[in-house]
Amino acid sequence: MRLSATDLEHGYALACQTVVEGDLEVFVPAQEEITRHLTTEKTAAKVALPFDYDWRTHQTVAKYFVEIPPPDLADNTDDLARLERELARHYDLRDLDAPLAVLRTLAHTLREADWRVTVVIDKSPQRPRLLDVLPGDQMQALYGAAVDIGTTTVTVYLVDLFSGDVVETAADYNGQIKRGEDVISRIVYASKNGTGLMELQSLVAMTVNKLVERCAHRRQIEPREIYKMAIVGNSTMMHILLGLPPEQIRLTPYITTVNQPPQVLATELNLNIHPLATVDSLPGVASFMGADITAGVLSSGTCSSDKVTLFLDIGTNGEMVFGTSEWLVSCACSAGPAFEGAGVFHGMRATTGAIEEVWINAKTYEPSIRVIGGGKPRGLCGSGLISLIAEMFITGVTDKAGSINLTLPTKRVRQGEHGAEYVIAWAEESDTGQDIVITKPDVDNLLRAKAAIYAGYVTLAHSVGMTLNDVEQMLIGGSFGQYLNIEKAIEIGLLPDLPWERFKFLGNTAARGAYMALLRKDARDEIAEIAKKMTYLELAADNAFTDQFMAAMFLPHTDMTQFPSVEKVLEGEEQ
Amino acid sequence: MRLSATDLEHGYALACQTVVEGDLEVFVPAQEEITRHLTTEKTAAKVALPFDYDWRTHQTVAKYFVEIPPPDLADNTDDLARLERELARHYDLRDLDAPLAVLRTLAHTLREADWRVTVVIDKSPQRPRLLDVLPGDQMQALYGAAVDIGTTTVTVYLVDLFSGDVVETAADYNGQIKRGEDVISRIVYASKNGTGLMELQSLVAMTVNKLVERCAHRRQIEPREIYKMAIVGNSTMMHILLGLPPEQIRLTPYITTVNQPPQVLATELNLNIHPLATVDSLPGVASFMGADITAGVLSSGTCSSDKVTLFLDIGTNGEMVFGTSEWLVSCACSAGPAFEGAGVFHGMRATTGAIEEVWINAKTYEPSIRVIGGGKPRGLCGSGLISLIAEMFITGVTDKAGSINLTLPTKRVRQGEHGAEYVIAWAEESDTGQDIVITKPDVDNLLRAKAAIYAGYVTLAHSVGMTLNDVEQMLIGGSFGQYLNIEKAIEIGLLPDLPWERFKFLGNTAARGAYMALLRKDARDEIAEIAKKMTYLELAADNAFTDQFMAAMFLPHTDMTQFPSVEKVLEGEEQ
Repeated sequence: MRLSATDLEHGYALACQTVVEGDLEVFVPAQEEITRHLTTEKTAAKVALPFDYDWRTHQTVAKYFVEIPPPDLADNTDDLARLERELARHYDLRDLDAPLAVLRTLAHTLREADWRVTVVIDKSPQRPRLLDVLPGDQMQALYGAAVDIGTTTVTVYLVDLFSGDVVETAADYNGQIKRGEDVISRIVYASKNGTGLMELQSLVAMTVNKLVERCAHRRQIEPREIYKMAIVGNSTMMHILLGLPPEQIRLTPYITTVNQPPQVLATELNLNIHPLATVDSLPGVASFMGADITAGVLSSGTCSSDKVTLFLDIGTNGEMVFGTSEWLVSCACSAGPAFEGAGVFHGMRATTGAIEEVWINAKTYEPSIRVIGGGKPRGLCGSGLISLIAEMFITGVTDKAGSINLTLPTKRVRQGEHGAEYVIAWAEESDTGQDIVITKPDVDNLLRAKAAIYAGYVTLAHSVGMTLNDVEQMLIGGSFGQYLNIEKAIEIGLLPDLPWERFKFLGNTAARGAYMALLRKDARDEIAEIAKKMTYLELAADNAFTDQFMAAMFLPHTDMTQFPSVEKVLEGEEQ
Repeated sequence: MRLSATDLEHGYALACQTVVEGDLEVFVPAQEEITRHLTTEKTAAKVALPFDYDWRTHQTVAKYFVEIPPPDLADNTDDLARLERELARHYDLRDLDAPLAVLRTLAHTLREADWRVTVVIDKSPQRPRLLDVLPGDQMQALYGAAVDIGTTTVTVYLVDLFSGDVVETAADYNGQIKRGEDVISRIVYASKNGTGLMELQSLVAMTVNKLVERCAHRRQIEPREIYKMAIVGNSTMMHILLGLPPEQIRLTPYITTVNQPPQVLATELNLNIHPLATVDSLPGVASFMGADITAGVLSSGTCSSDKVTLFLDIGTNGEMVFGTSEWLVSCACSAGPAFEGAGVFHGMRATTGAIEEVWINAKTYEPSIRVIGGGKPRGLCGSGLISLIAEMFITGVTDKAGSINLTLPTKRVRQGEHGAEYVIAWAEESDTGQDIVITKPDVDNLLRAKAAIYAGYVTLAHSVGMTLNDVEQMLIGGSFGQYLNIEKAIEIGLLPDLPWERFKFLGNTAARGAYMALLRKDARDEIAEIAKKMTYLELAADNAFTDQFMAAMFLPHTDMTQFPSVEKVLEGEEQ
């Protein structure tokens, strides 16, 4: 990390380099405090039912009301067999797996309820599993939950499994964040001592539990009324959730313990829904191609399209899939969390106070900004950074290589502590009382991130003998995508230079894929099929990728013929 | 309970009627202390392999050694899939259920063991379950355990699942004894408060664990090397082991929660073998016809015999099965634990100091006795009581009704605190320093017990239109049976009056049935078949039984034509 002379003068020191010699008070700068409710939760549109749905035919979890003839001396069949007899008679259900937890209360429930009960059955195991026996008629509702565990954000959909509707949604930061911002730092933390893994497991389980409780509370139900959960996440998040050591994920040759995790019971993961609820961790493909992407390929329609499709999920990592309904090829780029504001001097997450859009006057080099929440700015979030760099490039504040032109006739460009920098907001305009700047190292970080992603596109296309011009539609998932300005993303070379109508922003494709898998067994099977048929390119072993990466380390690219629209804009500026 | 005037004089009081007003010391009379090692354990003959056995074809648990090609960038399949690939290739094993506990150590074990591992697979679930992945070649042995949970005694066989041999046995009192001697008192204890059931569960689990550890220690293995357990017991013992409330078992119409309990994992019952080991609770038929009997029907050969067979398992309860390979009918008699010495004034269990055989001189009425361990007597165990009552009856110390003849010319008969009694050992000959006697109430207790059992035989035979003369063989299980004297048991009317060669004493048929089910899947399936096809007569609802019971309340029976051999003996005595 970098501390400026001014910082040092003000008494700043690097915590990681400092020995604590006595009591001390710790202040966390305001910008790092986590705003409780993410904007995604507040602004989430109602999630529409993505397909036909009839719980009787599509759903693996079901409820049945039965009235059982009470026993007498002439008919002394045991309680379970009596129940099974009626379920076979009326619903053709046979050979149930009856867990001990259900059997332990069965005698009492049957008699308490006067032999009228509602049973909850999970038909997903090879033997249908008796999840619960509830007193009386409780056919009014049946719940499940779809969960997306992002490295940064966890999202929960509470779903009415009878109607198929998402009835509540909630999202919040992954509780693991305090143990590292990105996947690699989580793996390191999980691997470094005996309890790190289980601590991270517990942190994410607590996050999921908190969100489930929030949804349940709003719906006025108990979390234990949730009888099924489908979960997606990248392979590291899934490993940690399942308590599987993730360390091999970051070590060559990058091997997961399992890409298609077994279904487990909620109680095994300390998830506070019904303890016997099946938790279905959807399948991934490789260490850096997880269930969030296979689920996204399904929900985005990539896998069912006749068009040549480029699907990009841009979050803390950048994963992309190239293909049609016939074939799929994928890769992951360690873009790092630069687009989430990390590794950028005044970067921050997309919460209140973040600059999300910038315009620079080509004559005066004065910026106009839009700030989330409308108040004074505190820093720049991902979309703000893309917007800023595009504007700086188009207006000549930087050149193709990202070098800031210090000769411009404006005080906005200057030599700062970390090299050349551009001032977006003066101290008196900012919420922090400091100048908000972007520095040359920041620009370099973002260049590396966007170059990795662009090189990924090209490598994928080349791997199947195509070019990016063959892309008939580009589907963009991830909450970040929702705020992306296509024009500016093309200008910096983060998106390929395609006609704008070919881009579609789909929001949280991962969560929606989990939701689809939660509802319909055939959708769940399709994700497994996607995981099976998708080819994964390991870029770490790919020289062609390295070449493409180097070529993309410019604004927008070394090869301007790949960005004709940007060339035109630049020509326009020059006139 | 009964306290004599002498007892009161000596300061005895009933603990249940006494208020403790200060500190007190409790002395437990020597006779009630549990001798650590039961005689059954010390004298157990080597258990022979009961049938052909080849683990590769018969056993559901198996071990396989595999060498796995290590991953590289070109072959980055996940760890589990790599393992499964080799298991499919070499052993045709597919679609494994991989529990989290195994997955959590898989990455480490594979690498630590340099990709050479021994896997343990349980093929009994519908999907074969991966129980363990052990480093290196560990094909030298594979263990299982067969367990018989008696109300009084728990028996464990440690079995080498490769050879099929019982390599160690251990037995001890069921730890639940301190919460009640018989099934009914255990049910009452389990039902009376919130923790009674789980306390009893824990007590029996601790007993099993102790015995398993004892076997494992002698074999120099770890308990977690035991990968399978088959358990039998009466329905109450099975309910308590599984943590199922047993209270409906004793309430009309006597309904169990489940007669065919699900297979569970050892960890669910706090059994300290391998946590993922399948614990197979064998199926029973009804509240008072448990897995100990269905297992005994198999191991005794009752279910495979062409002969009309009467199978009796006499332990704390008395259960019996009448049938052939074609049909089976059964009933249970609440004989109570009289034959284990309970409810008899000087009764005791069959341990050191128990009188196990008595002869009475027909002229002098002086007894000769044989004492377990050879020392001074402390009381009478079951076989001793049967022997004593038979001798008293044959020599005229009692009449047919069990009344003691006080007019005999001997000091041995006298009026005691509890009515007429006969002195077996004078105070100076006994270990307790007190006269050892049998009283009229004791005789009545034993009469009731034997009458219930005999009435059971007759009721069963009548239920299929037969009489006891049709019995072609009588098979007697239960450790008690091992010490039974046929002649004397017939003389008191406990056994039917059949030619002696028709009786066979088989020892612990329940444990042996569990052992057979542990070894061979088809034997396990046969027990389930037995449980399904066996008709159970509920005697509580049977007037014919009550009539038979009343008729059998005499020595040996009201109807002497049913006991011609005893009639002959009596005629001989009279000459």
